[in-house]
Amino acid sequence: MAAMSAVAGLAAELPDGVVVTDPDIVASYRQDRAADPAAGTPLAVVRPSRTEEVQTVLRWASENRIAVVPRGAGTGLSGGATAVNGGIVLSTEKMRDITVDPVTRTAVVQPGLLNAEVKKAVAEYGLWYPPDPSSFEICSIGGNIATNAGGLCCVKYGVTTDYVLGLQVVLADGTAVRLGGPRLKDVAGLSLTKLFVGSEGTLGVITEVTLRLLPPQPAACTVVATFDSVEAAASAVLTITSRIRPSMLEFMDAVAINAVEDKLRMGLDRSAAAMMVAASDDRGPTGAEDAEYMARVFTEAGASECFSTADPDEGEAFVAARRFAIPAVEAKGSLLLEDVGVPLPALAELVAGIAEIAAEHDLTISVIAHAGDGNTHPLIVFDPADAAMSERAQIAFGEIMDLAVSLGGTITGEHGVGRLKKPWLAGQLGPEAMELNRKIKAALDPDGILNPGAVV
Amino acid sequence: MAAMSAVAGLAAELPDGVVVTDPDIVASYRQDRAADPAAGTPLAVVRPSRTEEVQTVLRWASENRIAVVPRGAGTGLSGGATAVNGGIVLSTEKMRDITVDPVTRTAVVQPGLLNAEVKKAVAEYGLWYPPDPSSFEICSIGGNIATNAGGLCCVKYGVTTDYVLGLQVVLADGTAVRLGGPRLKDVAGLSLTKLFVGSEGTLGVITEVTLRLLPPQPAACTVVATFDSVEAAASAVLTITSRIRPSMLEFMDAVAINAVEDKLRMGLDRSAAAMMVAASDDRGPTGAEDAEYMARVFTEAGASECFSTADPDEGEAFVAARRFAIPAVEAKGSLLLEDVGVPLPALAELVAGIAEIAAEHDLTISVIAHAGDGNTHPLIVFDPADAAMSERAQIAFGEIMDLAVSLGGTITGEHGVGRLKKPWLAGQLGPEAMELNRKIKAALDPDGILNPGAVV
Repeated sequence: MAAMSAVAGLAAELPDGVVVTDPDIVASYRQDRAADPAAGTPLAVVRPSRTEEVQTVLRWASENRIAVVPRGAGTGLSGGATAVNGGIVLSTEKMRDITVDPVTRTAVVQPGLLNAEVKKAVAEYGLWYPPDPSSFEICSIGGNIATNAGGLCCVKYGVTTDYVLGLQVVLADGTAVRLGGPRLKDVAGLSLTKLFVGSEGTLGVITEVTLRLLPPQPAACTVVATFDSVEAAASAVLTITSRIRPSMLEFMDAVAINAVEDKLRMGLDRSAAAMMVAASDDRGPTGAEDAEYMARVFTEAGASECFSTADPDEGEAFVAARRFAIPAVEAKGSLLLEDVGVPLPALAELVAGIAEIAAEHDLTISVIAHAGDGNTHPLIVFDPADAAMSERAQIAFGEIMDLAVSLGGTITGEHGVGRLKKPWLAGQLGPEAMELNRKIKAALDPDGILNPGAVV
Repeated sequence: MAAMSAVAGLAAELPDGVVVTDPDIVASYRQDRAADPAAGTPLAVVRPSRTEEVQTVLRWASENRIAVVPRGAGTGLSGGATAVNGGIVLSTEKMRDITVDPVTRTAVVQPGLLNAEVKKAVAEYGLWYPPDPSSFEICSIGGNIATNAGGLCCVKYGVTTDYVLGLQVVLADGTAVRLGGPRLKDVAGLSLTKLFVGSEGTLGVITEVTLRLLPPQPAACTVVATFDSVEAAASAVLTITSRIRPSMLEFMDAVAINAVEDKLRMGLDRSAAAMMVAASDDRGPTGAEDAEYMARVFTEAGASECFSTADPDEGEAFVAARRFAIPAVEAKGSLLLEDVGVPLPALAELVAGIAEIAAEHDLTISVIAHAGDGNTHPLIVFDPADAAMSERAQIAFGEIMDLAVSLGGTITGEHGVGRLKKPWLAGQLGPEAMELNRKIKAALDPDGILNPGAVV
């Protein structure tokens, strides 16, 4: 009751419609795409459109000790935006301004804009924002920054943090602070901009970001190859990345190949154990030279088929097939979506170990991977109506993370820890780094109102 | 007395020779290249060679509340390694191991290795570590990471933080913690690796770093142009960076041109107001195309002379001239070395404003710049024996920072805040960001033993 009257107080402080308590709407904000079964029901959803409104919300939340779960487009896969009982969800979806400056090659963006919308807006100025999570058409730029999102082009172009020059964040107590700005070099004070990137809403709410942009991506030459063994594909990856910088180096296993072929009927080799989709976007003839080199490496590694194209549409069809792998496998059942990464030499061992885990627990686990940076997405297929199978899937989910850590890897390469992976974080980081995470969290959010239960 | 007996206690805990109290040696560690006149005399210099020894030092320092000033090669220009009375200097110069892994294209390096030594060691494996501060032959990799150092190639290849995948740091209480590792994507927990990069020894002591490496840099095509006006050169910079990605885009003013020509006699145009040294290292013919494009832009912007070369030695001669500008200007007197940066469109205004400051205070101030990223090094020439002139130089030093901040810029692009620039930090960051810096510092170093007086 006290909480609901507090919510009424907040609503009175904000423009009409910003605070939403309609139960149906509120219910639709309980979960993100991780579909966390432990999701609570929030008191309200708050959808501010200005930094000052976010400040009002956080001042109010601090005074009333009410938990705030920041949320972008709700496409997170680790439960970073799972609502909590007695808290509110702060959605940035209404914050959608963008200003592009072609002279400094930067854009100032509010967090609610989708990644694809950012790409489109800057493309109108002949510029390119590289980070390209597979969900780029539906995920928000604010969520990308909160999770330090990756994508397919990272193997050459790096991850989200590499494109963040500045931020405005609202802290737990409602203070708005500007960090960094449109300067390519700036070492004044601690690297706080970088600290907030990837903080998953636990340290503050991002209300504005200054992004670094690049000239347009040159057309890519694409190479597609199929293999009879995962090891052959993985060894080709090592050869390639130790010599050149491909703009894409993606892997799909047999399950993913067949799932995509079931849906798209594009003539993929259903008998293959692995398929690689590689590209080079180097300008001029060197792009084609790199593609030729990769085709040669694939062939020498034992590719059963290898196909190269400099035609962008043809290339894009294979990239689209790779992007389609997750929805295609999802057609087979519900997915527990993994995001483990390893140093490149351990890639084949990781994939083999995942196959063992799948066999042991009688599960289908398809592996797709941003192979060039060692980041894999094992897709654990299960039927939520089958309690025993769901439990086996959960066990496999944890065992895959344990395996990655045992191979010197990470429990999450680009999706974030959220709530689903939190129990495994300490196993990767160790007690000292965990304690350091907690100290930073306590220093910036002493009452623990920001995204409680996530990450730390 | 208590302090000296504490030092004896520390010496007893460490191998012979690690703790140095010889007054002559200790005196040589009082200052870095900033030659901070406020430097104190430390109790001792400690030169550990292993992480465990650094832990011993910091545990001891915490117990005895003794200040620790971490020091790399002592080439810092902001007084980040200025010794303090009653404290110790912790030099990482003996920590010089490196292991290169060509397969993952990473190197694990101890902090005492020089930047040039890292470049050389990885080059033996056909790899390249890009960051290239002008002092690369004498500065340490640990110092580079502590200051998030820049250089000439940053305009295309980014700064030090972009190459740091992992760190081992020893915290104020002696705890050793590993952050990140040899994984290109890793979002498990807060971005603490990035927080320590650029922290200037205020949060911990870096004892090991995992660096990301690239394939070798292709040979560059170089373009040199001279201009009758700074504005013409600056407008060419804007045109170039809004269209292509040069691998170098450097600026020297008339004073620097003449100072270099005095020493090197390479036929530079002494009458020019500005000289640009630009390069493109794109592979294949596109590098030459970019060089041609830049030459055209320079000419159209009004260059009085423009010279292009694809010969690496010829190109390197001009780059060496640019690198030699600081020592050449230093021949005219002592230097107060600035490091201010602005968003690119403000570059000409910054240079003009600096000329006004020079005129007003009757000083010679030469401006050289990493023009492509808006980072300038105004060199304030003064005679330390002339008290009035020294005072005017100090006033100009501050006014240049105020000017940069008023243009939306930074007081330091790549050298760090250290002690010399600390009074201006709040003016740039504002009270909210300053408070955030202080909170992080207090959380990680509650007793303030790490590099007290620097940055925050």
